[in-house]
Amino acid sequence: MKKIINKPEDYVKEMMEGLYIAHPDLITYTGDDVHCLVSVNKKPGKVGIATGGGSGHLPLFLGYVGKGMLDGCSVGDVFQSPSPDQMLKVTKEIDSGAGVLYIYGNYNGDIFNFDMAAEQADFEEDIKVESVVAGEDVASAGPAAPGEKNTRRGVAGIIFIYKCAGAAADAMLSLDEVKRVAEKAAANVRTMGVALTPCTVPRVGKPGFEIGDDEMEIGMGIHGETGIRRGKLEPADQIVEEMMDKIVADLPYVNGDEVAVLVNGLGATPLDEQYIVTRKIDSYLKEKGIKVHRYYVGEYATSIEMAGFSISLLKLDDELKGYLDAPAQTPFFVQL
Amino acid sequence: MKKIINKPEDYVKEMMEGLYIAHPDLITYTGDDVHCLVSVNKKPGKVGIATGGGSGHLPLFLGYVGKGMLDGCSVGDVFQSPSPDQMLKVTKEIDSGAGVLYIYGNYNGDIFNFDMAAEQADFEEDIKVESVVAGEDVASAGPAAPGEKNTRRGVAGIIFIYKCAGAAADAMLSLDEVKRVAEKAAANVRTMGVALTPCTVPRVGKPGFEIGDDEMEIGMGIHGETGIRRGKLEPADQIVEEMMDKIVADLPYVNGDEVAVLVNGLGATPLDEQYIVTRKIDSYLKEKGIKVHRYYVGEYATSIEMAGFSISLLKLDDELKGYLDAPAQTPFFVQL
Repeated sequence: MKKIINKPEDYVKEMMEGLYIAHPDLITYTGDDVHCLVSVNKKPGKVGIATGGGSGHLPLFLGYVGKGMLDGCSVGDVFQSPSPDQMLKVTKEIDSGAGVLYIYGNYNGDIFNFDMAAEQADFEEDIKVESVVAGEDVASAGPAAPGEKNTRRGVAGIIFIYKCAGAAADAMLSLDEVKRVAEKAAANVRTMGVALTPCTVPRVGKPGFEIGDDEMEIGMGIHGETGIRRGKLEPADQIVEEMMDKIVADLPYVNGDEVAVLVNGLGATPLDEQYIVTRKIDSYLKEKGIKVHRYYVGEYATSIEMAGFSISLLKLDDELKGYLDAPAQTPFFVQL
Repeated sequence: MKKIINKPEDYVKEMMEGLYIAHPDLITYTGDDVHCLVSVNKKPGKVGIATGGGSGHLPLFLGYVGKGMLDGCSVGDVFQSPSPDQMLKVTKEIDSGAGVLYIYGNYNGDIFNFDMAAEQADFEEDIKVESVVAGEDVASAGPAAPGEKNTRRGVAGIIFIYKCAGAAADAMLSLDEVKRVAEKAAANVRTMGVALTPCTVPRVGKPGFEIGDDEMEIGMGIHGETGIRRGKLEPADQIVEEMMDKIVADLPYVNGDEVAVLVNGLGATPLDEQYIVTRKIDSYLKEKGIKVHRYYVGEYATSIEMAGFSISLLKLDDELKGYLDAPAQTPFFVQL
C-alpha cells in the first residue's frame, strides 16, 4: 500500500482536519465531530440540503457544501456509511425552519441510516425531512419497472442533482419544490464508468480486486463493484463509444435533446485523458443530434486512487438549465 | 502502459481538442495550430502574459489562461518545449500594444525557444517582450550566488507567479511593473516535491524510471528528474516535516511572515492524502510563527499519472496579497 498517510485509523479524521484548515471561509463542523460538516454560510429560511456517505470519494461528498449547493454532509470511514446520529446532528444544524432535503446515493447502509435520521428529526426535533435517492449507474442494474424500486447504484451523476436542487433551495423554493427539482434531475441523469486499476482502502491495506496489466472493466462501481464486462484495454474512442451507446439508449437521449456532460476522473487518470475522452463524446453526441449545453471535466467523484473515468449525461429543460447555470461556491466547485 | 488514449502520436492534439470543446467561453487557438492557445477575453491596452512548456502537466500550463491570469500559452509534445514559431504566434495574438511578458519554467529548451521568440517579436513585429523565468525547486540546486544565474527547476510554484502577475496586468499596470510583480513573486516562492511512482510518456510507452513498492524519492522533479534522497516510504507527517524544513530554511521564511501555501498533487495522489498533508503543514507553520493567508489544495501542476505531491510557499506582502486575492476565471482556476 503506497499512500501518503499516517495511521490508517486516523485517515479520515486527519483528512477532515485538513479540509477545515484549507477552507475556513466555507465549511466547519458541528458539535465536536469532524465527520459532521456544515456550511458556515447559513441562509435564514432556506431549505437545508444534506448529503453523506463513505469517505474515499473526494471531492464527493464533502466538497459540495457551500453557497448555492449543499448545506451539510456527514461521512463515515472509507466506503462506510455515517451513522444516523451523525446525520441527525447535521440535520439539526442546517435546518432553519423550512425543512431539510437528503440527497444521497442508492446504497443499503446509507438508505437505512438516512431513513432513521429522518424519522428522528421528525419525531424528536420536529424537522420535516424529505429524501431523494440517486441511482443512475446504467451498468449496475436494469431500469426499474413502473412502481418498482430503483436498484441502480448512485455514482458521479449525483453532482447534477446537488447542483440543481442546491440552486432551487438558494432561490428560496419550498421543501416540496426543491424535492421536485432534485427528482427531476435524478430522473434525467445517467452514468457509466470504466476502471483500469483497483484502489486500496487504508485500513484493509491491499487492493479491493485484481485486474490484468492490459485489462479494463466496463461498468465497475465506485467501490469496485463488479461491472458488466472485463476485457483487453481498448483505444479511448472505442471505450467511449461503448459507454455512450449504453448511456444514450437508456433514458433514452434523442435527437434534439440538450444535455450537460460530466467527464469524471476516478482518481489516478490524468486530465489529459479525460479531455481525449471529452473530444470523442462531443463528436458522438453531434452525430446523434444531441446538443451539449456545458461540459464539466475533472475529478468530481473518485474511488481513492482508482484509474478510470465515468461519463454522466443530464437531459436539460429550461428549468434545470437555469439551476445548473446558477452560481455556486464550495471548496471544490466554483461557478460564476 | 495503461492509458485511456488513442494513438500516442495524437495524444496532445486530441487532448487540446477536448479542452477547446469543454471551455469555449474562455479559450481558443490562434491560426490553425491547436498548440497555440489564447484567451477569448482580450482586454484592450492590457499587458499580455504568455507561458508555455511541455504537455503532460495539466492543469499547467494551459489551464491558467483566462480572465485575471494568463492570455496565451503554447505547448509542445509531452515534456517537450513548444517551438519559437508557436510562441511567436501566441505573442502576436495577445499583444494589444502594451507589450507581452513571458513567464515560464527554468528549462534549457524553453529558455532557448522563448528567447528566440522574444527576439523575433521585437525585430519582426515590433512587440516589446520581457521574460521572467521561474526556478523555485529547492531540491534541484543550491540558491544562486549574487550575480549568478539561478539553476533551479521551475515547478508548481509558478502558479503563484501567474496569479500575481496576471492580477497586476488585469489592473492595467505597465509591462515593467507587471514584470516587477512577477519577479517579486518569483523571488518569494519555494517548492519541494516527493514522488512515489513514475509516469509514462505516451510515445515512450514505459515508465521513465523505476522505484520500489515501498520507496519514495524526495525532491524529484516533475519530469522524473533525480531528487535528493530515495528511501523507504515514511508516514505523511515525517515526509512533510523533512520537506518543510528544507523549504522554510531556504528563503528563509521566518516568525511573523505571512504566506500562501500550495499543496499540489502530482497526478495519482488522492485529495484525501493532500489534505492529510495540509493538516501537518498547518501545525508546522503554526509552530514556527508563520501565518497562512490562504491554502490552495489540489492538482495544479502534474506529471501525468505520477503519485506524489509538492508543497509551495509564497511569502506575501500587502501588494502580493492583493494580487493573489484578486478574482480570476480560467478553465482550472476560479476565484471570486
